[in-house]
Amino acid sequence: MPYELYYWPSIQGRGEFVRLAFEDAGVPYEDVCRDPARGVPALLAVLKGQEAGLRPFAPPILKHGDMLVAQTALVLHYVAAAIGLVPKDPAGRLAAHQVQLTIMDLVAEAHDTHHPVGTNLYYEDQKPEAERRATGFLAARMPKYLSWLEDLVQRGGGHPVGGAHTYVDLSVFQVLEGLAYAFPRGFAAFEPKVPGLVAVRERVRERSGIAAYLASPRRIPFNEDGIFRRYPELDAP
Amino acid sequence: MPYELYYWPSIQGRGEFVRLAFEDAGVPYEDVCRDPARGVPALLAVLKGQEAGLRPFAPPILKHGDMLVAQTALVLHYVAAAIGLVPKDPAGRLAAHQVQLTIMDLVAEAHDTHHPVGTNLYYEDQKPEAERRATGFLAARMPKYLSWLEDLVQRGGGHPVGGAHTYVDLSVFQVLEGLAYAFPRGFAAFEPKVPGLVAVRERVRERSGIAAYLASPRRIPFNEDGIFRRYPELDAP
Repeated sequence: MPYELYYWPSIQGRGEFVRLAFEDAGVPYEDVCRDPARGVPALLAVLKGQEAGLRPFAPPILKHGDMLVAQTALVLHYVAAAIGLVPKDPAGRLAAHQVQLTIMDLVAEAHDTHHPVGTNLYYEDQKPEAERRATGFLAARMPKYLSWLEDLVQRGGGHPVGGAHTYVDLSVFQVLEGLAYAFPRGFAAFEPKVPGLVAVRERVRERSGIAAYLASPRRIPFNEDGIFRRYPELDAP
Repeated sequence: MPYELYYWPSIQGRGEFVRLAFEDAGVPYEDVCRDPARGVPALLAVLKGQEAGLRPFAPPILKHGDMLVAQTALVLHYVAAAIGLVPKDPAGRLAAHQVQLTIMDLVAEAHDTHHPVGTNLYYEDQKPEAERRATGFLAARMPKYLSWLEDLVQRGGGHPVGGAHTYVDLSVFQVLEGLAYAFPRGFAAFEPKVPGLVAVRERVRERSGIAAYLASPRRIPFNEDGIFRRYPELDAP
């Protein structure tokens, strides 16, 4: 059965965590909304509940046979065992899912640095609030999340879970890339404190499927419509 | 093997979703931090990684044998099949987990109405921002989430998932109670639009385990240290 990913076609966003998994595993998937013949209307139809399966609240959404799976971490949990990106034992799968859920919390907080007052307002209408929130994010929240992840890697033989490469390694790569894009000064200042995560990131970057993907037009560049946005006024001084 | 819940002892918070599941199922659990002999230090030890198992980032945390499970929705996913609160088929479990994850996103946004700038600041230091965020929450985000849940209930024969009582029904009860506590005017104005959710809430309230729990001292009242806080200036006019 083919894997169909429904996600916004012009940003990395939360969909990127799913794209990285398929690209790393070398498993074909259709990035539905990037097909000009289908585009965003195909996603909107799913969000309106016009497809069989549980009507999802938000993308990314994976369609696989008659299954419709939403929530980024759950999509990865659903697909990872089948494509070889997580141990098959229940405890190992649970551990990976738990860490991924916490990574998604970090991602949500990174997003809220530029949208603290509301996703339904423009960034330009919440700039002073964004500067306050970004300051706290760089000073307290990002260090708290990354130090916890670093501790997992230090305890886990160089991987966040299971002592082996999983989709969580890919997500560590994506989060570190995103933070470095959004906060070049703030992240660079903190980076020396998480050498284990940096090693994970560099190892992921060199994996054959990921290296090929990053060099391809399938990898959408970071931009200011996504989750990780480079607004210099939000970065550390 | 006993179930041990590690959560803050003086608030409902995210731990309440787990408490409700055990209370409804009539399954004994130890609310560890409410035992004066153990208290909050027991939670802090787990957070520091001093227990066997995956070191969690934040509570609620469930200890079960040598398993340590964090992330509210994942705790419910882990425990629900064993205590009879979810269908045993994989697709049904996945659907319940997906809906619960989205409910937790709603809960996070409800929290952020009083802490839009940062969890590490006092509410008093972010009141104007909180008023802006609460306005958007009541006008757009709460209606979007609850209308989606209402649609699931309308399609699902009176239940959000699986056409039967699950832990997701309990979470609908908790969210509606919390929103009504935090936003008595704003929620009352919207409530007539979600009759299916209201029916779920009232049915849950009358279940024997839940009714006994709500009448007991084990149910901590809502208060202004929790997720759902009654700040009249954040409510609708």
